[in-house]
Amino acid sequence: MRTLKLTLQYDGTNYAGFQRQSNGITIQERLEYAMRIVTGDPLIKIGAAAGRTDAGVHARGQVVHLQTDSGIPTDRWPYALNQHLPADIVAVGAEEVSQDFHARYWAVSKRYRYTLETGPFHTPMTRLYAYHWPRALDLEAMRLAALLLAGRQDFAAFRSAGGSAKNSIRTVHALSLTEERPFLYLDIEADGFLYNMVRIIAGTLLEVGAGRRSLADVAEALQTGERRLAGKTLSPHGLSLEIVHYRDESVAGPGITVSDEDS
Amino acid sequence: MRTLKLTLQYDGTNYAGFQRQSNGITIQERLEYAMRIVTGDPLIKIGAAAGRTDAGVHARGQVVHLQTDSGIPTDRWPYALNQHLPADIVAVGAEEVSQDFHARYWAVSKRYRYTLETGPFHTPMTRLYAYHWPRALDLEAMRLAALLLAGRQDFAAFRSAGGSAKNSIRTVHALSLTEERPFLYLDIEADGFLYNMVRIIAGTLLEVGAGRRSLADVAEALQTGERRLAGKTLSPHGLSLEIVHYRDESVAGPGITVSDEDS
Repeated sequence: MRTLKLTLQYDGTNYAGFQRQSNGITIQERLEYAMRIVTGDPLIKIGAAAGRTDAGVHARGQVVHLQTDSGIPTDRWPYALNQHLPADIVAVGAEEVSQDFHARYWAVSKRYRYTLETGPFHTPMTRLYAYHWPRALDLEAMRLAALLLAGRQDFAAFRSAGGSAKNSIRTVHALSLTEERPFLYLDIEADGFLYNMVRIIAGTLLEVGAGRRSLADVAEALQTGERRLAGKTLSPHGLSLEIVHYRDESVAGPGITVSDEDS
Repeated sequence: MRTLKLTLQYDGTNYAGFQRQSNGITIQERLEYAMRIVTGDPLIKIGAAAGRTDAGVHARGQVVHLQTDSGIPTDRWPYALNQHLPADIVAVGAEEVSQDFHARYWAVSKRYRYTLETGPFHTPMTRLYAYHWPRALDLEAMRLAALLLAGRQDFAAFRSAGGSAKNSIRTVHALSLTEERPFLYLDIEADGFLYNMVRIIAGTLLEVGAGRRSLADVAEALQTGERRLAGKTLSPHGLSLEIVHYRDESVAGPGITVSDEDS
């Protein structure tokens, strides 16, 4: 048995999220369907995905692992899978990794991007990939709020009910705002994410930028863990899992020790 | 009666082109439906569109004109229409123009963009807006072919059957290639376009870049008007009408005198 690490891109619009569930078609089902055709193994499954993206969330760098006896050369895996995947799910990389590699546990950090479109109208070609905010935003205030949210702290106020993690302390390595009009990109890299954490942080920064929430609210949300002091959970369609970082293979081993509930 | 000039963006994926026809829903139908609700006038119609984009072709700067007695302030028209348009058609501008303004006849030039995606994989988020070409392209050869195609000449070899124009001489003011990996943008501005002209020019440049067609073929196609010497008609989904230029209003009047069959 070899362990493969696959990198995937997908447009989450038409799916009920990454993970198998009963109320709709998921990315995982489509992927495992393609894996079965390609390998001829009716029982093959993925081991895990780095991020359990929610319904409607996109990915430019999702990572999964799987174990297989298949003789298909590693570098041909993406091409073989893509022949049996719909056009909105694309395998873009494959590599053989240590037998005990785990896409989620071995991840050191992940980066998500939340995209806002700030012009007066929502461009049709980006309507599925950006959240439209047609009013003015105070970028300076948003940058100050982002500074408050960076670092290792308790994000209890920035999670939705329904997550499984007991510990809500996470380390946000970087939280940046990049303006490329009409788009405003919010990039957040952390060692792990609580349920809906990125979408709540995006909603909080948006409300600060719109003058509807103060920096003091954000500081108090972090101190008290009170959900009502943070912003709304923004829509999933503005969110994308951009990249997952792993330790150098030569020193491979489990990365984060915090549990992870994801986007 | 006032004459209004409206600017539109649309994702053409789900439509049978701009113009009313029997075999599917068109942009024009959706737009006129919204106009009727907004004005309360059940007979209101658009006068003309600058470009009769084909099924699947997009627009970032389509222009139409219409005549109305409606008391809605001109600058509110886009917002009023957008409330009754689907998210893949968006009015982004309105201005009052001379009574006899005509969106097609008064256009001096139009610019289309054809987008190629040249990486090994077709990004899911751009699958509907770019044509995927996963192999190497010789950009230098493509730029030389683009030089041959610029200027005032007979484009008889670069049109599909079905167009109505008697005269196939057009002036290509500019034809440029811009690389922003993995995308390659082909921007073409002309005083008018024959049926499928941009998509055939895009196909010709692609075949030159792939080494499947020579510069001598392109020169001969221009000289002889033989369709078989030009490239294939590339898929509509890579094409977008970017902008329509009109004469300065102060010296307004009919722009082009050539007839126009469009994309």
